[in-house]
Amino acid sequence: MDDRALVRAIRAIIGTDATDDDCAVIDDGENYLVMSTDMLHETTDFPNGMTSWQMGWMAAAVTLSDVASMGAHPIALLLAVGVDRAERVEEITRGADDCCRAYGCRLMGGDMDAHTECTLVSTGLGRVSPECLVRRRGAQPGDVVAVTGIPGQAQAGLDGYKEYWEALVVPRPGVFEGQALGRAGATAMMDVSDGLSISLHDLAEASGVRLDVTESVIPRPEGVPAEDAARYALFGGGDFGLLFTCPESVFPIAGVDATGIGRVSAGSGVYLDGMALEKVGYSHYWE
Amino acid sequence: MDDRALVRAIRAIIGTDATDDDCAVIDDGENYLVMSTDMLHETTDFPNGMTSWQMGWMAAAVTLSDVASMGAHPIALLLAVGVDRAERVEEITRGADDCCRAYGCRLMGGDMDAHTECTLVSTGLGRVSPECLVRRRGAQPGDVVAVTGIPGQAQAGLDGYKEYWEALVVPRPGVFEGQALGRAGATAMMDVSDGLSISLHDLAEASGVRLDVTESVIPRPEGVPAEDAARYALFGGGDFGLLFTCPESVFPIAGVDATGIGRVSAGSGVYLDGMALEKVGYSHYWE
Repeated sequence: MDDRALVRAIRAIIGTDATDDDCAVIDDGENYLVMSTDMLHETTDFPNGMTSWQMGWMAAAVTLSDVASMGAHPIALLLAVGVDRAERVEEITRGADDCCRAYGCRLMGGDMDAHTECTLVSTGLGRVSPECLVRRRGAQPGDVVAVTGIPGQAQAGLDGYKEYWEALVVPRPGVFEGQALGRAGATAMMDVSDGLSISLHDLAEASGVRLDVTESVIPRPEGVPAEDAARYALFGGGDFGLLFTCPESVFPIAGVDATGIGRVSAGSGVYLDGMALEKVGYSHYWE
Repeated sequence: MDDRALVRAIRAIIGTDATDDDCAVIDDGENYLVMSTDMLHETTDFPNGMTSWQMGWMAAAVTLSDVASMGAHPIALLLAVGVDRAERVEEITRGADDCCRAYGCRLMGGDMDAHTECTLVSTGLGRVSPECLVRRRGAQPGDVVAVTGIPGQAQAGLDGYKEYWEALVVPRPGVFEGQALGRAGATAMMDVSDGLSISLHDLAEASGVRLDVTESVIPRPEGVPAEDAARYALFGGGDFGLLFTCPESVFPIAGVDATGIGRVSAGSGVYLDGMALEKVGYSHYWE
């Protein structure tokens, strides 16, 4: 059973509305609040060689990325820290705090606990006006499919390409890009942290549309053999670019470094140069 | 190093304002938002014999209790679940969802992950009007010190008194009491989940006051030998009563089952029948 199978089981309990997007969406009168929580831990999420500061930064970044992908601006972040040694808490907190400050957010508290395995859970709160809120489900036939940044860099870093180590361990969430895309009229959005391919599938399913993507135009890490680079870009996890759709009339969007990679049409599924694209990406598996 | 020593270190990074209360407090225009996160895991927080459903319930309850202790009503809860076996996720989610529903809150999402040790992190969001917000720091000389419910029941359950097992594993957060106390004019409040004694000390320090408590009037679990009952009530953790202060003129408060146990005065420290009360309670320790 993997994440997405379990999500279906959870939906039966708490409803689909609460599990469809990168964040939960809460009506707050004039605005919406968005909220997301992410659990990271040593054996599965933190590559060997990461410092405590980097772990704190990454924990904040994954959650800020979720808030960004709704078009929202982040207000507050909480961090629950389970660690083997108390000395690590300060550096982890400093990393998370530095990440929050870099993106106009504030680390406002958390919890801590002795734990055999370093486990960080960050929870972010954001705010967005109704006209700027972007979900996964709004893609319309005719829209452009685009992605910010260069997917595959984090996977390249994980596989030993040292020039991409930084992209892996100090990821940059698209906080400003997400808000700009929300204001500009993006119709659907999510981050590609589980990989571009699986994200394309998730967005297509949520929106009930077909996505056609052109392989040759997908950005990919330089300095990596062509076959690896293409694989990393499609199937590698750990990047924090934003995958979005928008009307052709508003693309490209000023101030957002994004690449058009395809087109939305009626139907279902994701196609790469006309062939069905495998739905593979980063996922947690249980035995 | 224990929790409270570490909290001091963390305060140097993120500021005291963010770490003084059971929740972070966020200005939201007309109202305040409050937000709290709690990490629970198998070896230190879940007594042997708890079901997955009960773990989910407890994870939600500890966070709803934090929201309640600010006088706020809970809006949304997220649950991050790290478990050894995927089958457990559903029952844990159901427990958390049932607890949310019981207290007018909604489980709106979360995250999940394979983990060697069952680790649950719940994060709650609440809302409160400025005049009803209660912090730890508002106690005034002359105020009554009071506590809701019967402290010590959870510890009695943990020590084998079967009639209190339910109080331990299906704790009842004071969600309605906290809001009533906020409306009625409580001046300071927190929950007693780490134990009554340590909570009295925390409240006294945050408010910069002295608390005098009368041992004989503190409620305690029935059916337990007198000495144990008194010890459980003062030093046992895991209960979710609310410790609060309020002007004598508004006490008792309609609809809230609370017991006056002492008085606030100028000065510092916590005194039990005139003797300094030991600051001991539930705390996480690292080696």
